[in-house]
Amino acid sequence: MTTYRHFYVKSHAITSPSINLRDLPGSGKRLDIVARCINAAFWLSYGIRKNVVFHTILHGEPNPPIYIRFEGEKLRKVSPDERSIAIFIGKALKKFREDTEIESTPGVFVARKKFHELLEEHKDKNFYLLDEEGEDIGDVEIKKPFFILGDNVDLLPEEKKLLDDYGAQKISIGEKSYLSSHCITIINWWMDRHEH
Amino acid sequence: MTTYRHFYVKSHAITSPSINLRDLPGSGKRLDIVARCINAAFWLSYGIRKNVVFHTILHGEPNPPIYIRFEGEKLRKVSPDERSIAIFIGKALKKFREDTEIESTPGVFVARKKFHELLEEHKDKNFYLLDEEGEDIGDVEIKKPFFILGDNVDLLPEEKKLLDDYGAQKISIGEKSYLSSHCITIINWWMDRHEH
Repeated sequence: MTTYRHFYVKSHAITSPSINLRDLPGSGKRLDIVARCINAAFWLSYGIRKNVVFHTILHGEPNPPIYIRFEGEKLRKVSPDERSIAIFIGKALKKFREDTEIESTPGVFVARKKFHELLEEHKDKNFYLLDEEGEDIGDVEIKKPFFILGDNVDLLPEEKKLLDDYGAQKISIGEKSYLSSHCITIINWWMDRHEH
Repeated sequence: MTTYRHFYVKSHAITSPSINLRDLPGSGKRLDIVARCINAAFWLSYGIRKNVVFHTILHGEPNPPIYIRFEGEKLRKVSPDERSIAIFIGKALKKFREDTEIESTPGVFVARKKFHELLEEHKDKNFYLLDEEGEDIGDVEIKKPFFILGDNVDLLPEEKKLLDDYGAQKISIGEKSYLSSHCITIINWWMDRHEH
């Protein structure tokens, strides 16, 4: 049986289908972070991790919140560089429809969805919130994981409260504050090392 | 006393100062890999790792080999996204001079240098070659490290022979083959966790 790994990254990136690929950090409102997180979630030297599902909700203007999901099993043609990943996010934003979820390109899905709806959908899994003050990952038994991370801005108190209501456990990978993409790389590696 | 971490990534990226920022993987000959490796080597959420020195030698056309070094202590103004890092590599290539090392922007140095010259310069350190068949990182005591990685292409037999002559130890972070940038992220994290 495949053990899936879910990652959610809250993003403040723009929800406009016109992304300026020359300025992902600025006018894209740190869309570069999301792109690097997707790289970290999926890529190995010789292929894509098929057991990973990556979720994000973009909270930037002009049309938030927009939910985007990448599924490793179905992903095709995306390259690991930031620009390529951002292009596929742009395609998702272009095909977004208010009333239904769309598969914008193979393995990439886009919909209107709020954070609490996402948690409700996945409540059969265990939520782990990355937090420097959480329990050390070495002391936690991770099962059916749904990892939650912020981008360069912390989650809101009400989001943390909601996670609390859903029984999320705070876990830490160390005292230093790492980039979200680096956290994902480390968690994937940690899981590779400890799953067997 | 600061414990420095050196990383070297062999690259096949182009050595032309005219980099097409829209095509780092293609015409840039995987310059995106170098950019992500530099991101992995230096960035934390709130700053740059000052104890890291990153080395690469670009082996692509038209003017190989060109050596570039990033020093965490002196690095300024570079952002963590691939495009920004590639711009700084482009500036280094523009200021390259055949006869002497140049500091092209703060903390970025460029020179004509071959791999064996780099090893000779750093022979006071311990070379660790990342290799899936090496000794597990958990079983190795890492001191004064100078880590060696390839990009998407393996090192040449003569480079491995040279490393052998310099007493390099093969170390492994697992059975899977990880992206070079992910290896660097994991090694940095591993060192953070085990240095104290």
